[in-house]
Amino acid sequence: MVYVTRRVHFNAAHRMHNPSWDDARNAEVFGKCNNPNWHGHNYELEVTLVGEPHPETGYVADLSRLAQLLETELLEKVDHKNLNLDVDFMQGVIPSAENFAIQIWHQLAPLVAPARLYAVRLYETPRNFVEYRGASN
Amino acid sequence: MVYVTRRVHFNAAHRMHNPSWDDARNAEVFGKCNNPNWHGHNYELEVTLVGEPHPETGYVADLSRLAQLLETELLEKVDHKNLNLDVDFMQGVIPSAENFAIQIWHQLAPLVAPARLYAVRLYETPRNFVEYRGASN
Amino acid sequence: MVYVTRRVHFNAAHRMHNPSWDDARNAEVFGKCNNPNWHGHNYELEVTLVGEPHPETGYVADLSRLAQLLETELLEKVDHKNLNLDVDFMQGVIPSAENFAIQIWHQLAPLVAPARLYAVRLYETPRNFVEYRGASN
Amino acid sequence: MVYVTRRVHFNAAHRMHNPSWDDARNAEVFGKCNNPNWHGHNYELEVTLVGEPHPETGYVADLSRLAQLLETELLEKVDHKNLNLDVDFMQGVIPSAENFAIQIWHQLAPLVAPARLYAVRLYETPRNFVEYRGASN
Amino acid sequence: MVYVTRRVHFNAAHRMHNPSWDDARNAEVFGKCNNPNWHGHNYELEVTLVGEPHPETGYVADLSRLAQLLETELLEKVDHKNLNLDVDFMQGVIPSAENFAIQIWHQLAPLVAPARLYAVRLYETPRNFVEYRGASN
Amino acid sequence: MVYVTRRVHFNAAHRMHNPSWDDARNAEVFGKCNNPNWHGHNYELEVTLVGEPHPETGYVADLSRLAQLLETELLEKVDHKNLNLDVDFMQGVIPSAENFAIQIWHQLAPLVAPARLYAVRLYETPRNFVEYRGASN
Repeated sequence: MVYVTRRVHFNAAHRMHNPSWDDARNAEVFGKCNNPNWHGHNYELEVTLVGEPHPETGYVADLSRLAQLLETELLEKVDHKNLNLDVDFMQGVIPSAENFAIQIWHQLAPLVAPARLYAVRLYETPRNFVEYRGASN
Repeated sequence: MVYVTRRVHFNAAHRMHNPSWDDARNAEVFGKCNNPNWHGHNYELEVTLVGEPHPETGYVADLSRLAQLLETELLEKVDHKNLNLDVDFMQGVIPSAENFAIQIWHQLAPLVAPARLYAVRLYETPRNFVEYRGASN
Repeated sequence: MVYVTRRVHFNAAHRMHNPSWDDARNAEVFGKCNNPNWHGHNYELEVTLVGEPHPETGYVADLSRLAQLLETELLEKVDHKNLNLDVDFMQGVIPSAENFAIQIWHQLAPLVAPARLYAVRLYETPRNFVEYRGASN
Repeated sequence: MVYVTRRVHFNAAHRMHNPSWDDARNAEVFGKCNNPNWHGHNYELEVTLVGEPHPETGYVADLSRLAQLLETELLEKVDHKNLNLDVDFMQGVIPSAENFAIQIWHQLAPLVAPARLYAVRLYETPRNFVEYRGASN
Repeated sequence: MVYVTRRVHFNAAHRMHNPSWDDARNAEVFGKCNNPNWHGHNYELEVTLVGEPHPETGYVADLSRLAQLLETELLEKVDHKNLNLDVDFMQGVIPSAENFAIQIWHQLAPLVAPARLYAVRLYETPRNFVEYRGASN
Repeated sequence: MVYVTRRVHFNAAHRMHNPSWDDARNAEVFGKCNNPNWHGHNYELEVTLVGEPHPETGYVADLSRLAQLLETELLEKVDHKNLNLDVDFMQGVIPSAENFAIQIWHQLAPLVAPARLYAVRLYETPRNFVEYRGASN
């Protein structure tokens, strides 16, 4: 088994906010991340697949095809968007990096056969990042 | 003369929009950067001062004092903010990286004596950045 | 389960030296890392926690609280310090990156509940780094 | 157990090509990576060993000795070389990053005792990389 | 005046070789860079324009248009190519980073009006790079 | 004219201290950088030469020869050393990044003919760096 990773970049606005709380509690818990006028990030996303290299190509997955799949299935939905307002798969989800990574996993996992999705690593800043490896890890 | 640079990080939301144009023209010229729901960036800012090292300290400028000045005079105003809505010195200015760098220059230039502000370099993404060196350069 | 990482930076002096050996053997085994006048590094430290995102916040851990904990419990003890002379939890320990990472683990593991400490990755240089995942991994 | 990594750099030319296919199929499957006049990369390689720190040195492995081993056993064979034409251990292997990482593993695994080879991570570009952890992982 | 930079990435094969010399002298002067079977690099290219921000857009240049121009006028000619064999504007030129940067300048300078080309910086590796600012600098 | 840069890495210990001041003033001015037990850095140094590419080689300077010169004339003197105690050309100089860059300039400037030394850029940390371009700039 070999692990194959493609790293992509996008930027987006978001706001940490729990709609079941009042404004005071949101401000207290989320601090400046709760700014009602939004803030944003340059997200870096590493998508890792795992599988056996195909004997005829040497590829676990054709990374240019993976890059194209990430473009159409993910980046067009999130790049230069507002995670709270514009992204269908984030509706009803608090847009923490943790939750965002889990949702990205669910978007991508069905699409990468015959390889298998191994991990989604999401950098919100160069110093803060999260990784999700599916429900069983 | 020695050039001394401090690099700092912040993130913010913004939207490219010229209020004297109608929506169609804004959308055509600014594309996805015109998203009415905003998008955002992790900005990296390099502030370069120039001067003679002081004979008693070896410093052109005490970088921990510069870091503190950047914190109170700049980062508190822009970090986790919306450049169009929240930042006083960006009111009436289209928040391109170019214009933002010029405004940052005007914020900082009066504060760095006895050194002199030499350049403000602003990375909007790791692949797009601008630099302003004052009106005479 | 989601893995959440915070990366922090500090710098320190150290010297590789086994006090039970004579100087010749220390010099032979540790080479230039044994310099009696010390040398130093800009350490980069990645601290990874693992847990379930809290349903009300979307956070495995509040990274600004983690950043503050790292500041008071670790960085104040090691930043701009001499690992051999100044750091209480390194006394009697040869300050290799391996041993330093293990000691950092023991400093942090009791403090991160309800999340769990998953890994401590320590970059001594951009090309040399170590990772410790606790006694059972 | 502690994981110890050394990162090294080399550059090489290669070409994706399956000699059992005709030119049309090679061009279709491998696209611009099939250019008969070759293309090349700055490869970054991370070699990770795992073991217990030695009580007398604090080292899982002496990284300067590992660096020297990588120099003589690997870099001299691949740096400024053509993977398809010049590298003995790549003969008969399609030089995908996946296959190249597996072959590097087989070159290095017998040489790192008493530590154990844990992973070989190979960056073909900053955005595309693969990792191999041996036949049992 | 504001300086605006776009950074792009491509990879290519090349070989240092002076056809007016015999093989022995080529090998002696260029060393492993003279390998007749080629080697290659992941080049990073920074293209810097200079100009006044347009009052209606805040842009010195629309960076997405610059990115597209770099794609069609440069990257399609050099990405996954052999600089010695495949690139029209490198014929008869020894493909050092210095000469390559000068030729890239001549390709791009006529195309960026109303901005002006200020610099072409070419990274052959993360540790070796060159910059050309035109004949008068 | 083309600007050619080589980036090298070393690490060292140092301490900010003005011997003509008492301890209280040193502590007040230099803060934690004054720690009597030293601290240290991974320095990154960029050395930039300027000149015309030689018509027979395409090189302003042979970067492998420059790398070797930096090794013997600089890195052997400063790598894994104490700047205050071990480095001859830093005796009597307060080892700020500014002063260190100036001294490195004086070490290297006489050695790079027929190219000319254009700049010495020294990163003390990834966020703090200085540049010296000689007495006339």
